[in-house]
Amino acid sequence: MKVETDTRSRILVTARELFHGRSYADVGIKEICESAKVQKGSFYHFFPSKQDLAMAVIDDMAEEWAHGFVAEAFDRNLPPMERLDYLIDAAYYWQKAAKDLEGRVPGCLFGNLALEVSTRDEVIRAKINAVFRKASESFREALSEAVELGAVAPLDAELTGEAMLAYLEGIILLAKSRNDPDVVRLLGPAIKTIRIEMKPGN
Amino acid sequence: MKVETDTRSRILVTARELFHGRSYADVGIKEICESAKVQKGSFYHFFPSKQDLAMAVIDDMAEEWAHGFVAEAFDRNLPPMERLDYLIDAAYYWQKAAKDLEGRVPGCLFGNLALEVSTRDEVIRAKINAVFRKASESFREALSEAVELGAVAPLDAELTGEAMLAYLEGIILLAKSRNDPDVVRLLGPAIKTIRIEMKPGN
Repeated sequence: MKVETDTRSRILVTARELFHGRSYADVGIKEICESAKVQKGSFYHFFPSKQDLAMAVIDDMAEEWAHGFVAEAFDRNLPPMERLDYLIDAAYYWQKAAKDLEGRVPGCLFGNLALEVSTRDEVIRAKINAVFRKASESFREALSEAVELGAVAPLDAELTGEAMLAYLEGIILLAKSRNDPDVVRLLGPAIKTIRIEMKPGN
Repeated sequence: MKVETDTRSRILVTARELFHGRSYADVGIKEICESAKVQKGSFYHFFPSKQDLAMAVIDDMAEEWAHGFVAEAFDRNLPPMERLDYLIDAAYYWQKAAKDLEGRVPGCLFGNLALEVSTRDEVIRAKINAVFRKASESFREALSEAVELGAVAPLDAELTGEAMLAYLEGIILLAKSRNDPDVVRLLGPAIKTIRIEMKPGN
C-alpha cells in the first residue's frame, strides 16, 4: 500500500513540475515515467491516460492550495481586504522562488492549462473552471465581509470577485511573458481598486 | 512573385487559425502544409523552422491588429476613456464570433502563446512581450490624455496601463476557461476602475 502511494505521488509530483515548467503537450508519458523512475505498466495502473493524469495533477494542486496558501490568504481571522494583500504577496513569492530556482517565471499552472487545452479537452477545461469557480468564491466571501464591515462601499461581490481572479491570472500571465516576477509585485496591489457596481434593483 | 506571396500568406493564415484554435505544440508543420495545400519544400522555403513561422504569425497578427481594431479602439478622435469601452466591446465580439463559428472561445492568441511557450522559447517570449509592451503603451497614452483632460484623477499612467492590459488578458483567459464570451462583456467594463497611484515625488 505504501509503495503504491509512493509511486502514484511520485508520478503526480513529477508530472506537475514538468507540465508547469514547460507545457502539457510538450511532456510525454515516457518522459514522466523516466523522470519519476516508474515503469510504464505501473503508470497505466494508476493513470489509464494522460488526461487522467492531468485531472489528478489539477486535483492534487487545488487540494494543496486549498489547505496551503489560499487557506492562509483567505483566513477569516484576517481583515477581508488584507487577505488580498496576502494573496498577491504569496503569488509574487511563488513566481519569484520558481524563477530563482529555474531561471523562468512559470506562471500559474491552472492558467497555463486553461489556455493550452480548453479548446481541445472539455474534461480538463471543466475541471479547471471548477477550480476557478472555487477561487472566485473566496474572493466573493472576502468582499461581502468587507462590505458588511464598511471597509468597502457596497458592490457586486460575485462579479467583482470574478474580476479580481481574472486580474490575478492576468498579472501572472504578464509576469510570465516578461519573465519578471516583479510585475506581480508592482501591479498586484491594484487588485483592490477593481469594482463592479450592483445592478439597480439587486 | 504573386504566387510566392499567396503561398506564404496561405501558410500564415492557416497556421494562425490552427495555433489559435488548438495550441502551438499541438499543430505540426505536416498538418499546416496539408491544410494550406502547400508542399513541405515550399514551406521551408518561406519558414526554415516552426519557430520562424510562429514569429511571422505573431508579426502578421500584431500588424493586422495595429491597423485594425486596436487602431480603431485607440483612435485619438475618441474621448480617451471611451477607447477602453471600444476595446472591451471588440474583445467580446471577437471571442463571441469565434465561439459562434467553432463552438469554442479561443482566447487571445498572444496570451495563449505567452503561457504555452514562454518557459521554452526565449525568442517567441520576447516577441510576444514586445507586442504586449506596445499594447500597454496605447493604454498609457489614453490614460495620460484622460488625466490631462480631467476625465480621470492623476494616476501612474504607465503602471495603470500595464494593469489594464493584464486585466484584459485575464478576463479573456477566464472566458476561455468557461467557454463563455459573456465573461468579457460582464467583467470588461471594470477595466476603467483599475488605478495605480503615482509614487510620491513623481
